[in-house]
Amino acid sequence: MEAIAFLAPDQKVLDRRDHIIADLADLLPKERLIHRKTQLVPFETDGFVAYRRMPLCVALPETTAQVAAVMKYCHRYKIPVVPRGAGTSLSGGAIGQEDAVILGLSAMTRILDIDFMNRTATVQAGVTNLSISDAVGHEGFFYAPDPSSQLACTIGGNIGMNSGGAHCLKYGVTTNNLLGVKMVLVDGTVIELGGKALDSAGYDLLGLICGSEGQLGIVTEATVRLLAKPEGARPVLFGFDSAESAGNCVADIIGAGIVPVAIEFMDREAIAICEAFAKAGYPMDAEALLIVEVEGSDAEMDAMLADICDIARAHGVKTVRESQSATEAALIWKGRKSAFGATGRIADYICMDGTVPLSQLAYVLKKTSEITDSYGLRVANVFHAGDGNMHPLILYNINDPEDAARAEAAGMEILKLCVDAGGCLTGEHGVGIEKRDLMRHQFSEADLAQQMAARAAFDPDWLLNPSKVFPLEGR
Amino acid sequence: MEAIAFLAPDQKVLDRRDHIIADLADLLPKERLIHRKTQLVPFETDGFVAYRRMPLCVALPETTAQVAAVMKYCHRYKIPVVPRGAGTSLSGGAIGQEDAVILGLSAMTRILDIDFMNRTATVQAGVTNLSISDAVGHEGFFYAPDPSSQLACTIGGNIGMNSGGAHCLKYGVTTNNLLGVKMVLVDGTVIELGGKALDSAGYDLLGLICGSEGQLGIVTEATVRLLAKPEGARPVLFGFDSAESAGNCVADIIGAGIVPVAIEFMDREAIAICEAFAKAGYPMDAEALLIVEVEGSDAEMDAMLADICDIARAHGVKTVRESQSATEAALIWKGRKSAFGATGRIADYICMDGTVPLSQLAYVLKKTSEITDSYGLRVANVFHAGDGNMHPLILYNINDPEDAARAEAAGMEILKLCVDAGGCLTGEHGVGIEKRDLMRHQFSEADLAQQMAARAAFDPDWLLNPSKVFPLEGR
Repeated sequence: MEAIAFLAPDQKVLDRRDHIIADLADLLPKERLIHRKTQLVPFETDGFVAYRRMPLCVALPETTAQVAAVMKYCHRYKIPVVPRGAGTSLSGGAIGQEDAVILGLSAMTRILDIDFMNRTATVQAGVTNLSISDAVGHEGFFYAPDPSSQLACTIGGNIGMNSGGAHCLKYGVTTNNLLGVKMVLVDGTVIELGGKALDSAGYDLLGLICGSEGQLGIVTEATVRLLAKPEGARPVLFGFDSAESAGNCVADIIGAGIVPVAIEFMDREAIAICEAFAKAGYPMDAEALLIVEVEGSDAEMDAMLADICDIARAHGVKTVRESQSATEAALIWKGRKSAFGATGRIADYICMDGTVPLSQLAYVLKKTSEITDSYGLRVANVFHAGDGNMHPLILYNINDPEDAARAEAAGMEILKLCVDAGGCLTGEHGVGIEKRDLMRHQFSEADLAQQMAARAAFDPDWLLNPSKVFPLEGR
Repeated sequence: MEAIAFLAPDQKVLDRRDHIIADLADLLPKERLIHRKTQLVPFETDGFVAYRRMPLCVALPETTAQVAAVMKYCHRYKIPVVPRGAGTSLSGGAIGQEDAVILGLSAMTRILDIDFMNRTATVQAGVTNLSISDAVGHEGFFYAPDPSSQLACTIGGNIGMNSGGAHCLKYGVTTNNLLGVKMVLVDGTVIELGGKALDSAGYDLLGLICGSEGQLGIVTEATVRLLAKPEGARPVLFGFDSAESAGNCVADIIGAGIVPVAIEFMDREAIAICEAFAKAGYPMDAEALLIVEVEGSDAEMDAMLADICDIARAHGVKTVRESQSATEAALIWKGRKSAFGATGRIADYICMDGTVPLSQLAYVLKKTSEITDSYGLRVANVFHAGDGNMHPLILYNINDPEDAARAEAAGMEILKLCVDAGGCLTGEHGVGIEKRDLMRHQFSEADLAQQMAARAAFDPDWLLNPSKVFPLEGR
């Protein structure tokens, strides 16, 4: 893949590297500053593995006060800072560069407060997504957003990218489940936004922070909403003999006002890949598979599934299979959740992340195939269909530069297709560096100028995660 | 009540009043500029009737282009602009002043697009809240946020104040149901935020706009989410012999993970007032009444109500009465929704709007009584208990300046109490001018400075609704 442009590193910062490292070491506990080249290698890239940049150093504070001290120092000397959680970003959001300090939150792993009466949990930013649910499960609660990387990814990273997941169809994405944050501003000032109460006076800065990809401040603590676990849950497989029928079935389910907890879509390529890996019992003769999960009491699930089956039959569904046990249900989800890993076993791939109105699902799937065909590439589609969040996985060979360039070009065409169909060039993976230059396709100059003005209200010197989100030229 | 401070009117603008009116008249259709004093009287105040200020004039554009023309003109000559929907604001958000143009959106009443497949409606900002539901009801859909003023209030005003309503416990407030806006910036530039797709790339400016009280731009069009009407709905009355028991019952219902569509609370004073007006059959011997509404199929409602009744019995409920018919259900809601009007028949009142964590409900109710007792005032509590959004109505005599001052002082103490209990000084009515000076009680100087910096990124000259939200001194 061709080298993506970053901002030119600041020579003054590069020249003072040793000095900066010595200063930062004074602000952090022993061994919480990583600066030797060999130790920095794991921080060269993130889940967007196509690009690598070596950072200046990595700071791993344990407290908000230490984060504030690092920010105050970096702000005084105009040193760029890139916040990072577990580094699972798929859009390059956590990649630094030679003049930038990576501020890793992964050592801030304390759960500070669990309040069952108000259904909230307050945690440090480095707590992993799944460990919140683990900490409250014994009382029958859970934290809803469930990115596929939930075992590893942190709540701070989830906030930065406004992460979603398969079950966000019913429960919403991170912004819908976030009640408050403690945040360190670029100059080291600590502010609090939101809290346990359902509303906050003044502007909704909390909502603005969520999804701002670490450019407005460093979130160090988060208060999130806990939900009661449903009485039961049942995934059902629906096999169709065309992607179009499956896409239209999804649109009709949602159009009828039915909201299952998840509607996941796999095309033939994805079914084959996942079934080979997980042996989940997916129908191998289907062109498209829907995994529809409903929740509630048995009576509620029966009633909702009856309506869903009626709609599926109207679209000529070929196979309907309800999971008969918790084991089988887990296996169905294992197949889906391991889709990216299973794909990685057979080929290199880039995972696109676009969102389209449901009425456009079938059309966009058809055009996606046409685009990848025209580049001579294979594509596997496995995605959150219920909220129109598509994930075409474009298969290619990372060691063949021409193949990689073709994959990248096909990906960009697909994202433009999503925008042109009335959708958006990202669903839950963020803009990062990957889609930075496509922002012009989505937004007018006036739109971008206003977004950048909002950014400048927090970070006038563009020190926070500076190479991301906005096109480099025209700032 | 003592005169509330506004910014001093700009003398240069006052001196050019006739000139400005003539210029604005050129930008608008005939009779869409109101400037004669007698015609301006209805625009002197809003739902926060305690204060009156005459505006310079009122512009009533019919299109986004006309709004943009007015903004471009006012921006060039640095004329303050106060956006206004139906003028139902309870915090003074739509009151202007002598040097300000009121930009009324009430003539922009066109429904532009209804898309049942994607479950969205796109409407001009002056469309009333209820008329969205009216326009889609025949297909079984509705727009969820339901402020008591929904017959009159506009979607633009709802966005400005991030309005809620009784049924927001389940469905969320405006920000949870808003998908996109078209907005005119202070200099007349038109931008679009969000859209029919579920996510948007870049920062969540849409969330920031929602609840920004008209200070960041003029919303001219909104795309909102439509929901499917439930199969059935059933309100149930629960009478308790103490406010504390009722408050703890609410906390336990929510704490158990049960989410009815609404939990409304009335104390003895409010029960008497509403029953006298609506003859809704409320239990007159109760110290506190909960109206709990559940939705779904009969089986679902039965199951949820059984759980709720168990909890209510554990708190010693005295009366349980399910509505037996649609007529009876409508009557129960009529009593609740007319609470403010019914109160106005017996006394003047100010309606406070604070939010508290549910675990603090019983405590805050008790302290509220103590505060009003100490001022020798009566209070009626009628509010959205399920989301902790309290509405103490403090009764007083508007023609007795001392009584009015006492009511205002008691109200401020109650809001501080909400903040000190871990809550917030506004739930759904906004800050406006009413709670502007309490913002310092909720927020640190760093918090406020960052909010004002965000504002300045949109409106560096503070032309939009300038006297609102932030304390006047210290800007």
